[in-house]
Amino acid sequence: MFRQRRSKKIGMSPGTLLYVGDRVDGKIRITVMDYTEEGVIEKSLTDIADCRPCRDSPSVTWINISGVHDVSLIEGLGRQFDLHALMLEDVLNTEQRPKLDDYDDCLFLVLKMVTPDASRGTVDYEQVSIILGHNYVISLQEVETDVFNPVRERIRKGKGRIRKQGADYLTYALVDMVVDHYFSALEIFGEHIEDLQAEVVAALDPQMPQIIQQLKKEVLFLRKSVWPMREAVNALTRSESPLLQEETALYLRDVHDHSVQVIDTIETYRDMLSSTLDIYLSSVSNRMNEVMKVLTIIATIFIPMTFIAGIYGMNFKYMPELEWTWSYPVLWIVLIVVFILMVVWFKRRKWL
Amino acid sequence: MFRQRRSKKIGMSPGTLLYVGDRVDGKIRITVMDYTEEGVIEKSLTDIADCRPCRDSPSVTWINISGVHDVSLIEGLGRQFDLHALMLEDVLNTEQRPKLDDYDDCLFLVLKMVTPDASRGTVDYEQVSIILGHNYVISLQEVETDVFNPVRERIRKGKGRIRKQGADYLTYALVDMVVDHYFSALEIFGEHIEDLQAEVVAALDPQMPQIIQQLKKEVLFLRKSVWPMREAVNALTRSESPLLQEETALYLRDVHDHSVQVIDTIETYRDMLSSTLDIYLSSVSNRMNEVMKVLTIIATIFIPMTFIAGIYGMNFKYMPELEWTWSYPVLWIVLIVVFILMVVWFKRRKWL
Amino acid sequence: MFRQRRSKKIGMSPGTLLYVGDRVDGKIRITVMDYTEEGVIEKSLTDIADCRPCRDSPSVTWINISGVHDVSLIEGLGRQFDLHALMLEDVLNTEQRPKLDDYDDCLFLVLKMVTPDASRGTVDYEQVSIILGHNYVISLQEVETDVFNPVRERIRKGKGRIRKQGADYLTYALVDMVVDHYFSALEIFGEHIEDLQAEVVAALDPQMPQIIQQLKKEVLFLRKSVWPMREAVNALTRSESPLLQEETALYLRDVHDHSVQVIDTIETYRDMLSSTLDIYLSSVSNRMNEVMKVLTIIATIFIPMTFIAGIYGMNFKYMPELEWTWSYPVLWIVLIVVFILMVVWFKRRKWL
Amino acid sequence: MFRQRRSKKIGMSPGTLLYVGDRVDGKIRITVMDYTEEGVIEKSLTDIADCRPCRDSPSVTWINISGVHDVSLIEGLGRQFDLHALMLEDVLNTEQRPKLDDYDDCLFLVLKMVTPDASRGTVDYEQVSIILGHNYVISLQEVETDVFNPVRERIRKGKGRIRKQGADYLTYALVDMVVDHYFSALEIFGEHIEDLQAEVVAALDPQMPQIIQQLKKEVLFLRKSVWPMREAVNALTRSESPLLQEETALYLRDVHDHSVQVIDTIETYRDMLSSTLDIYLSSVSNRMNEVMKVLTIIATIFIPMTFIAGIYGMNFKYMPELEWTWSYPVLWIVLIVVFILMVVWFKRRKWL
Amino acid sequence: MFRQRRSKKIGMSPGTLLYVGDRVDGKIRITVMDYTEEGVIEKSLTDIADCRPCRDSPSVTWINISGVHDVSLIEGLGRQFDLHALMLEDVLNTEQRPKLDDYDDCLFLVLKMVTPDASRGTVDYEQVSIILGHNYVISLQEVETDVFNPVRERIRKGKGRIRKQGADYLTYALVDMVVDHYFSALEIFGEHIEDLQAEVVAALDPQMPQIIQQLKKEVLFLRKSVWPMREAVNALTRSESPLLQEETALYLRDVHDHSVQVIDTIETYRDMLSSTLDIYLSSVSNRMNEVMKVLTIIATIFIPMTFIAGIYGMNFKYMPELEWTWSYPVLWIVLIVVFILMVVWFKRRKWL
Repeated sequence: MFRQRRSKKIGMSPGTLLYVGDRVDGKIRITVMDYTEEGVIEKSLTDIADCRPCRDSPSVTWINISGVHDVSLIEGLGRQFDLHALMLEDVLNTEQRPKLDDYDDCLFLVLKMVTPDASRGTVDYEQVSIILGHNYVISLQEVETDVFNPVRERIRKGKGRIRKQGADYLTYALVDMVVDHYFSALEIFGEHIEDLQAEVVAALDPQMPQIIQQLKKEVLFLRKSVWPMREAVNALTRSESPLLQEETALYLRDVHDHSVQVIDTIETYRDMLSSTLDIYLSSVSNRMNEVMKVLTIIATIFIPMTFIAGIYGMNFKYMPELEWTWSYPVLWIVLIVVFILMVVWFKRRKWL
Repeated sequence: MFRQRRSKKIGMSPGTLLYVGDRVDGKIRITVMDYTEEGVIEKSLTDIADCRPCRDSPSVTWINISGVHDVSLIEGLGRQFDLHALMLEDVLNTEQRPKLDDYDDCLFLVLKMVTPDASRGTVDYEQVSIILGHNYVISLQEVETDVFNPVRERIRKGKGRIRKQGADYLTYALVDMVVDHYFSALEIFGEHIEDLQAEVVAALDPQMPQIIQQLKKEVLFLRKSVWPMREAVNALTRSESPLLQEETALYLRDVHDHSVQVIDTIETYRDMLSSTLDIYLSSVSNRMNEVMKVLTIIATIFIPMTFIAGIYGMNFKYMPELEWTWSYPVLWIVLIVVFILMVVWFKRRKWL
Repeated sequence: MFRQRRSKKIGMSPGTLLYVGDRVDGKIRITVMDYTEEGVIEKSLTDIADCRPCRDSPSVTWINISGVHDVSLIEGLGRQFDLHALMLEDVLNTEQRPKLDDYDDCLFLVLKMVTPDASRGTVDYEQVSIILGHNYVISLQEVETDVFNPVRERIRKGKGRIRKQGADYLTYALVDMVVDHYFSALEIFGEHIEDLQAEVVAALDPQMPQIIQQLKKEVLFLRKSVWPMREAVNALTRSESPLLQEETALYLRDVHDHSVQVIDTIETYRDMLSSTLDIYLSSVSNRMNEVMKVLTIIATIFIPMTFIAGIYGMNFKYMPELEWTWSYPVLWIVLIVVFILMVVWFKRRKWL
Repeated sequence: MFRQRRSKKIGMSPGTLLYVGDRVDGKIRITVMDYTEEGVIEKSLTDIADCRPCRDSPSVTWINISGVHDVSLIEGLGRQFDLHALMLEDVLNTEQRPKLDDYDDCLFLVLKMVTPDASRGTVDYEQVSIILGHNYVISLQEVETDVFNPVRERIRKGKGRIRKQGADYLTYALVDMVVDHYFSALEIFGEHIEDLQAEVVAALDPQMPQIIQQLKKEVLFLRKSVWPMREAVNALTRSESPLLQEETALYLRDVHDHSVQVIDTIETYRDMLSSTLDIYLSSVSNRMNEVMKVLTIIATIFIPMTFIAGIYGMNFKYMPELEWTWSYPVLWIVLIVVFILMVVWFKRRKWL
Repeated sequence: MFRQRRSKKIGMSPGTLLYVGDRVDGKIRITVMDYTEEGVIEKSLTDIADCRPCRDSPSVTWINISGVHDVSLIEGLGRQFDLHALMLEDVLNTEQRPKLDDYDDCLFLVLKMVTPDASRGTVDYEQVSIILGHNYVISLQEVETDVFNPVRERIRKGKGRIRKQGADYLTYALVDMVVDHYFSALEIFGEHIEDLQAEVVAALDPQMPQIIQQLKKEVLFLRKSVWPMREAVNALTRSESPLLQEETALYLRDVHDHSVQVIDTIETYRDMLSSTLDIYLSSVSNRMNEVMKVLTIIATIFIPMTFIAGIYGMNFKYMPELEWTWSYPVLWIVLIVVFILMVVWFKRRKWL
């Protein structure tokens, strides 16, 4: 799901808008929330041009767009808000690396949101772009999700300080949502890994290495999206953009701490997965050792005894032992003594 | 025990106070020590509001709270001391990463305290939050422990310089206690590892890899809590907050040295654990080689001899050897010569 | 293909021009594009001296040279544009590491361009040198390729902003082309790796380790050329040369992001390749375990039974069992019971 | 020997003097050298208070104390020279990490001195504390050694520049001694490793992995004491303390170079030890392969032939071959042909 | 060859001149080149004092000394050029780490020169010290080599810019020679590694791991000498010494690029060598798997059939099958059917 598909853009003029991604059939939804400390106006738009009045109002305006495959919509958005072509290009390229770009009059943040898919045991990645301008925030998602609903709820109910603060606090709230979602992905991975470790000890499933490696790959991809996100959030924290108030920096530092915690946990999981494979391999090794010992004990005891039996199965005319009366019982005694000596020897070597 | 449970906070407004942790049934105890160079007043509170007078007195006030699962208590504390909502949230979230936050009028320090559980051979983690304000220190623990008793004792007896110094020195003393406790955890791990290495050499226990990996996981978790702690202590050392006097910086540097020493030792332990697994695996390998050699020697000696015996066990009518008088003794001589040659050959190859 | 052949230059005076590379027979082609916002003049030169007039014109001049093995041509170029001897030396040395050199009056950029060769599954490296001077750009390639054609097309058609911008924007466009080509190489590697992982699971091809290592080597070489390229592009981004306008820096930062993304992906691929080898090796291990178990089961069941049969094949005169009427059926019963017990024992140990 | 014993200090007031270490029975010796360019006065003290006059003289005074387990002595020293309590605590705690502390009026340096114990093949660690004050140097060792004798000799004979320089140069001379001693430890390790590598190739000693790991552990401990020492020496080099003259910085840089060289060599040794284990393991692997091949060849040749012999050992009444005159010789020819074919097949597969 | 022999210097006063190295019997040769743009004077000295006049002349003087084991010579040199004692010590200590020291009136550079010894497949290291003073350069080598001949030639013929530039350019030319020689060592290593990889695939030589590790050790030593060299060259590049002109910095940057390229290649070689060992080990693993399969197939087919033959070789009086006319042919049919079923089963499991 992180396949490189950028190649289709090779040779394009930068600023040429082209959607890179595979969610081309989703419905596009534009919602606008316009709020001050006193109240909230919420509406759903069909034409992007309708959001123009909000932009110029003194209230904080949050435009959320779900579905970014409609190039003309994004172009329209760019025109309405005087956004740089490169920014629009990055919005459309859903394989962008998380980053923060500072375009003097606005801050542009690209993040990856994860949605753990518990049934398949994997994680879905979705690109979230956030544009913070003077008094407005535009958030763009690949598909419609409920990830920002808690923020909407808080705005509607005027819970917490969100309505009292500006657009930068809203940005923080959105970023916080995205980062927080990583924890649920980590929980799923954590449970998977603990299950795997329990299974490895319980039984020797030859599929185990592949399952472990699959999980490792997932964790690798997760890591690939978190590292740059941490950098982006850090850049936001240290940003000296006038769009960010000092008060908000405190909250952003908190988000940064969380993203560092996500990375810590991912690194611990990587180590634990490697350990799990090591346990599996040493179990296979132990098992083979066990199998070899059984084979060796059986073969070492019976091969010499079979040889002795073979000797007296020979048809030579002149074999004096064959004629003796006590040969057969004596032979049995010899065999039993050999057997006992062997067993004692194995016990000594701790093979039994 | 380091499971991610943050997910239940997803979507909450920042500043919404919610206890994240699993120690919900412990008794809550609030103790206050108010001291100057001349004397100490010690009391146990039930209502957090009662600590208000201490705050405003010129003496140094140390409020220690054991048990942080009562959200209303923490809220009350916040009101009494004008603490920032984010700080209170971090106090309640016991899965916080160790860190230092500088809220102009106070310093907020989150640490993890370890309590080695020698019987189970693991380590318990408990979050300790320390708030250093002007003339007061608030320490918050998840459960009641005796970790700070030595400090209390020193205050009561006026031993050392603690009563002569301010709140920053008290903070140092508390942090020092927390860091020092890591050394006892390290001692337990160190003994475990040395025991393991002795056992690995002595016997081939197939459980060994899991035991090693389990210990490795413990060390990983320890490391995960020490690294950010070192950073936090370092930040404290380099902090230019007016709440810290220059004299105290000297002591804090000492604590920082200790936390670096803890990390050094943890890294050495990780290397030693990896080595222990390597020794185990090479022992299994050696053992298999040994087993294989026994099998091969036995099989290589007896299989050809059994074949010879088999030949003369055939019932062909015309087998001249069967009729000869000396066939049987000659055969024995041949078998013995073959046996000796084989043994010599094995000796040459150093298999015997 | 990254063999060190620099050794033939040892002992040469720096500035001695000597071609280092193996593409000595390609045709050399010099094309010139001279454009302003109003129009484009395009021509193909045979004598490098003819490009002199372009240099002095106020329009932007792009000279592209395919084939750098003609030392006299490069010398001529150096004379026409007053280029430093070291720069010319680097142009001729096609084993140069990607880098950015700032020669006050011009910027000199060495890059490696990759052309994936899908049929052989490898990647070809070609050195591209770009010289950005005042109002002119000179690009030098080892062989003639179509990599810059999209840029030419954009200039011809006046698409995008390229005709409105200066030589620095053209440089950006060329660098962008080179970096973008890495994504197609990555796509091929990505597919290879996924194919390998599928194959590894499906079958145990003993060639697999070599194939994996071969791919790993390719990825290593790719990495070796991307790391310094990233540094060079980064240096370009942070360059304070007056030849670069601020507006262009924005675009260069974009290219830098892409090169970081290439490195991220390469690192992920390295991890995945290591995992693939691990899966292969654990499959071999599993397979051997399987084989050993079959051998052990068969041998453990039949060797003792063969021994029993051998006993009653002995020719002793006095073996009472031989005379009994029910000996033979009883023996069969004993054998079958032994067989069943063995099978049960194996089932218990989960070997069957 | 690097066991953590700090835990006994947990809960102590900082500045409480307590000896942490295990050399409690050594004799304590205090020697004083007081020198100027003109002459040297050398004496042996019993009461630390007697060194007071030296302190105030304009000559350079070097006080060397062997044995630091007498807390009262160290306390007395502290009083005489107005040393900070933390410094005295660090002197007594022989498990201190190497470090440099700058107490305005003096520099405090903790180092680890190594004494290779060639017979046991290990290294002994001893803590050396050096206090550089105005015109005096105090060096404190755990036991009496001859490590500083060369310096004493140089002072006595006025060799080199030591008598012409101040206390900072003396400090340099002492640090130089300590760092130089690491080279002899490295020499011993280097020889050990080369011996091991020779042995590994010569024979398969199953003890080898443990011996290698033991050496690895020693190298790890050495590394653990060198890294912070390098940092401490570096801090000394870059120190802007007025106690250090510029001229001495040149010499200190040299010592720093040596400590970096020690680290380089340790890292190389670590790599070499890992390689040695790899060679051992691949030798075991090769050996098993060899053993397996012998077993397989013998079994593969004789098992089918034994089967054929078994067939004609059956007692069926109607087996026409048994009656034929040439059966037996023909069977031998068949067996020999089978044998030859097998051998050829093995040769083809390069097993013989 | 990188053995630590510094230990014989332990306890020496710094500045005590003592030769550390093993080339004590080489002839010592002192050559002087004194040149201006107009002409060159070349002579061979026997007494170092004779170079005094050159030093004071305005022309550039290059003194090259081959053989540094004559301590009195180096002392004489120090006196003539007022060189610091530490510098002379480093010249004599041929186990010095590459470095750059800035002694206000001169720059002192220590480098390691490599001479690949193609026949033994190893590399010889020789220390080259370069002292750059005002208008003079002194280069000191352990033995006489032809490494600087190309520079001499260039000076003699006035080729390139060398005669037009000052002593700093000469220094650059010498450093360039030393760095360039690494490329030939790398070429030899590169060929070795490719040969090894081809061999590993072609055959299973049990010596292979040792050969690979030997090469790895060589690469490690090479790395150990290149890393500090890169730092030294970098320090030279960034040096603000008035002895270096700005123009020369450009050339030095070029040398720095080359040393980085050397390190890149060495790292790639390390990775390739690790891969080669992995391929070898997986080949051994594959081979064992192959061997095991042959053994298992043969044993699994013939052991049960031998058992059946053994049954009918028993001598019970009452075995009805023995009397039946068709027993023998039926048995053959049974055996053949068993054989075919086995083969089919093996085919199914892809063992055949």
